[in-house]
Amino acid sequence: MNQPQKIAYLGPAATYSHEAAIKQFGPDARYLPMRSIPDVFYATARREVDYGIVPVENALEGSVTYTLDMFARPDPELASLTISAELYLPIVANLLVGPEGPQTLAEIELVYSHPQPLAQSRNWLQQNLPQVEFQEASSTARAAELALTNPKSGAISNRLTAEMYGLRIIAPSIQDADFNQTRFLVIGYRPFEANLNQHGRATTAIMLSIKDRVGALHAITSIFVKYGLNMNRIESRPSKQKAWDYFFFIDFNGYPSQPNVGAALEELNNETSWVKVLGSWLREL
Amino acid sequence: MNQPQKIAYLGPAATYSHEAAIKQFGPDARYLPMRSIPDVFYATARREVDYGIVPVENALEGSVTYTLDMFARPDPELASLTISAELYLPIVANLLVGPEGPQTLAEIELVYSHPQPLAQSRNWLQQNLPQVEFQEASSTARAAELALTNPKSGAISNRLTAEMYGLRIIAPSIQDADFNQTRFLVIGYRPFEANLNQHGRATTAIMLSIKDRVGALHAITSIFVKYGLNMNRIESRPSKQKAWDYFFFIDFNGYPSQPNVGAALEELNNETSWVKVLGSWLREL
Repeated sequence: MNQPQKIAYLGPAATYSHEAAIKQFGPDARYLPMRSIPDVFYATARREVDYGIVPVENALEGSVTYTLDMFARPDPELASLTISAELYLPIVANLLVGPEGPQTLAEIELVYSHPQPLAQSRNWLQQNLPQVEFQEASSTARAAELALTNPKSGAISNRLTAEMYGLRIIAPSIQDADFNQTRFLVIGYRPFEANLNQHGRATTAIMLSIKDRVGALHAITSIFVKYGLNMNRIESRPSKQKAWDYFFFIDFNGYPSQPNVGAALEELNNETSWVKVLGSWLREL
Repeated sequence: MNQPQKIAYLGPAATYSHEAAIKQFGPDARYLPMRSIPDVFYATARREVDYGIVPVENALEGSVTYTLDMFARPDPELASLTISAELYLPIVANLLVGPEGPQTLAEIELVYSHPQPLAQSRNWLQQNLPQVEFQEASSTARAAELALTNPKSGAISNRLTAEMYGLRIIAPSIQDADFNQTRFLVIGYRPFEANLNQHGRATTAIMLSIKDRVGALHAITSIFVKYGLNMNRIESRPSKQKAWDYFFFIDFNGYPSQPNVGAALEELNNETSWVKVLGSWLREL
């Protein structure tokens, strides 16, 4: 019999990362909460798990720089990690109460939450709970735990938190923007087996370090134009090694064994200090 | 007699932003501390000051997203703001003590600081003050105020804080990376009078919104390649209006009255929902 797959995610249990992991790997995998994004990378690189799942971008807040910086960290232990897949999770915030807690909104005196869902539900809270006090918690799951201890309080979190911690949704989907999503990456030490040749949905992520700032961005983008490769994303992060020295993260359509991609990568290699292919997968959106 | 120029910066007094403002506008200007980056934008847009100064990028931490998001905020009151100049400030962290405070490092039991300089001085602190307790403050200036109240404590901040709050530098330049700098922008309702035609140092910043994600980045970069314009910087931020919809911030060499720049801007206008020129100035680096 096969062992269940082991998956590392940013804990505690029931976070949006946990929800994303279950969406990707289903009910039979074993899910291991980690204390930080670096811990997800190291647990995966050390093969303590089969895959790790990390948030990389939120539709409202932008890039998760902690995750990008981990790809850029010059630690040989992390060098073999590859991106295997991406997935998108709608970010829904609900107001939860404990079984002994308030029966109506009017009974709520205090709401616990992580600062981000709190900020993202501001309009609803102002309209529906104008008199209520707010207290920040280190995670949405911790907010739920605190709400269980105080019968006049609620917590803002996802549905999974309600299910796992035994709370009830007293007001569903209270977030101000109905379009909010987070994009997650699946990282591992081996790629998924995906047929990149199909569907025209293959995406490749590369990271590169430029030799010299002036003209470098021009040289790089010229190569993508020359080989007809569509960039979907370009991000930069400081190298942290000297001032105004950057690592670029670029996603483009295609996969390395295509001849034009191979030629472009070779030319990029000549124009930059180094290029690293972070992975290829089938695009979700 | 001329009125002194009025300059808004991110306060309280003696922050790195204050230091940058004095570097740019000299000893005779009047400096007004603001409580937030948005307050600097609004004070400038309402002409309560002549110029505002805002941090836009740090060599270790990357972009200051609060500042980019203010340029993107769809508020007509802010529409007339323009970027007039840029400047770079070395970020030096010092350990400060009050006049009644410790005489030697060995007498320090507690260090106050903002989380960022604290994190950026970790190696020095571990080596030189391994037993000391740390307490976070809302700003480096606030840390200095707290250090003045406790004779067994110190604060991490810049030289200007020592001068303005009456502390002594007991250990200079304790930051781990000796290259750290922050890039600031000067914003106003009229440009500086600079001769952009000289020196080949003219830079223009634009912001644009793309119509459709697929292929848009390719179309934009192709236009820069076609007109021989060097992009120095490309950043994106979520539009916050729908999912995976971005504003791009691009800096390039040149200024709008040059024929090739004018032609490129016209072509960008056709390829995107809109393009806005944020300003032109002479590059510092």
